[in-house]
Amino acid sequence: MGLIPADPDFEARVRESFSRQRAMATLGVRIARVAPGEVDLELGYRADLTQQHGYLHAGIVTTVLDSACGYAAFTLMPADATVLSVEFKTNLLAPAEGETLLARGRVLKAGRTLTVCEASGVMLSGGREKAVAHMVGTMMALAGKPDR
Amino acid sequence: MGLIPADPDFEARVRESFSRQRAMATLGVRIARVAPGEVDLELGYRADLTQQHGYLHAGIVTTVLDSACGYAAFTLMPADATVLSVEFKTNLLAPAEGETLLARGRVLKAGRTLTVCEASGVMLSGGREKAVAHMVGTMMALAGKPDR
Amino acid sequence: MGLIPADPDFEARVRESFSRQRAMATLGVRIARVAPGEVDLELGYRADLTQQHGYLHAGIVTTVLDSACGYAAFTLMPADATVLSVEFKTNLLAPAEGETLLARGRVLKAGRTLTVCEASGVMLSGGREKAVAHMVGTMMALAGKPDR
Amino acid sequence: MGLIPADPDFEARVRESFSRQRAMATLGVRIARVAPGEVDLELGYRADLTQQHGYLHAGIVTTVLDSACGYAAFTLMPADATVLSVEFKTNLLAPAEGETLLARGRVLKAGRTLTVCEASGVMLSGGREKAVAHMVGTMMALAGKPDR
Repeated sequence: MGLIPADPDFEARVRESFSRQRAMATLGVRIARVAPGEVDLELGYRADLTQQHGYLHAGIVTTVLDSACGYAAFTLMPADATVLSVEFKTNLLAPAEGETLLARGRVLKAGRTLTVCEASGVMLSGGREKAVAHMVGTMMALAGKPDR
Repeated sequence: MGLIPADPDFEARVRESFSRQRAMATLGVRIARVAPGEVDLELGYRADLTQQHGYLHAGIVTTVLDSACGYAAFTLMPADATVLSVEFKTNLLAPAEGETLLARGRVLKAGRTLTVCEASGVMLSGGREKAVAHMVGTMMALAGKPDR
Repeated sequence: MGLIPADPDFEARVRESFSRQRAMATLGVRIARVAPGEVDLELGYRADLTQQHGYLHAGIVTTVLDSACGYAAFTLMPADATVLSVEFKTNLLAPAEGETLLARGRVLKAGRTLTVCEASGVMLSGGREKAVAHMVGTMMALAGKPDR
Repeated sequence: MGLIPADPDFEARVRESFSRQRAMATLGVRIARVAPGEVDLELGYRADLTQQHGYLHAGIVTTVLDSACGYAAFTLMPADATVLSVEFKTNLLAPAEGETLLARGRVLKAGRTLTVCEASGVMLSGGREKAVAHMVGTMMALAGKPDR
């Protein structure tokens, strides 16, 4: 999309903020990739994060998609802003079974205050991808409120 | 709403299924109340489930709201059905800070295949309630596929 | 909810703005009620606004729900602000058949910039109500940008 | 995506059903393209379908996106099925001003009962495109209920 980050240090800022999202460490979510307007996150399958059929819980999948969206938006925000989720919808496409959940967050439209993102969630197993969830959400920049 | 459960043992069925949602035990979510078309869940604040500002992560809040919606729908389903989330949207209303997250799931419209639910998320602190999130979602009954 | 409008002339402001929404006149939507944080709109059934089965088109129902949400939010905004829709989700609950669509828009959470509203859509027929649609949406106040 | 329609006459079926959506004729919406899993619709700007600032009303934009999603899903459904909207969310990205609204509906995941679609709405003006809205929605096939 040729998106130009307002802050050249966007990647360091994303990684530092992510490291303070304690839910990410608790769940075991890792950053796989950071680029302008794009953040990929990964979560290895964990049986203790499942719903009643043994698939990753839709809310856990959503947690990873939401952080992918939020940090995708954050890559384009100025250095003195912090990011909050306004809303998101998750459509569940298939049971989240497999080895690793990969969430690809992408900015659809960046605005000064509101940024719309989408994230696709796929389960990786033996080199194959299966789409399991899709999110579109609105992220808000709070300017003048540093992230930490 | 005067909703009539198809299965008189709906509460036992909800509790048994909930006990198999391993994500609930991992996060520490408890059932607070089960009634026809209504399920309330609770999660005590945990610093290790937060986003970068120390509030409960929006995805964790969503996880509790989703299970509240799913089991509210499940109370009205026949004994031989299982429940899956089709989609949900969460609107975040305020930072999730306080002592306990209470999620009240309610059936808006029960159908044979699809049931629409809403769930409100409030943080309880010192006897006061603060609305922090609102979900509307679609839950699907898979008939002839027992929940376990 | 005991909501206090920032502008005591909120009702006149809503009616004046509504009169400039030309889509409302074209579709035949009328204001049924205005109160702080609440706006009800009505649309008589029209066969020329239907989908392929003869029910009101889900998008037309959404149009009425969206304006009900937007003006419910607008009742609480300052006199010098205008309102825009950020996002909304409509869940369709039943076919929109009957005499009159009544959309009840309500503020769930009013904020300085963003206001979250819900709207329920019911079809009225012979004095009976049938729920046909439910919306939750985010409305944005643009301050210092008068509505006209 | 290499989607294979269950009914080789999918295009005729889409066009025939669309011709019975009287709201489409009333608004002036035209079919621009039909392919497996893809339907594009167009609506020329009309001042009588606007909100208070003179942009196409978000609900009218949604009406076009919803039909684009529904018929994109319908292309992949069996000949004896009809299609209904279950839910959709629209994110508004920019004011809908310009010459023509083009809605591109695409299937994200086709299922036997439920199909998830997305639709992007762009305004075309002087050969340029501006993204104005994005929808993700769930469409339902009712088998054994012919569309007409």
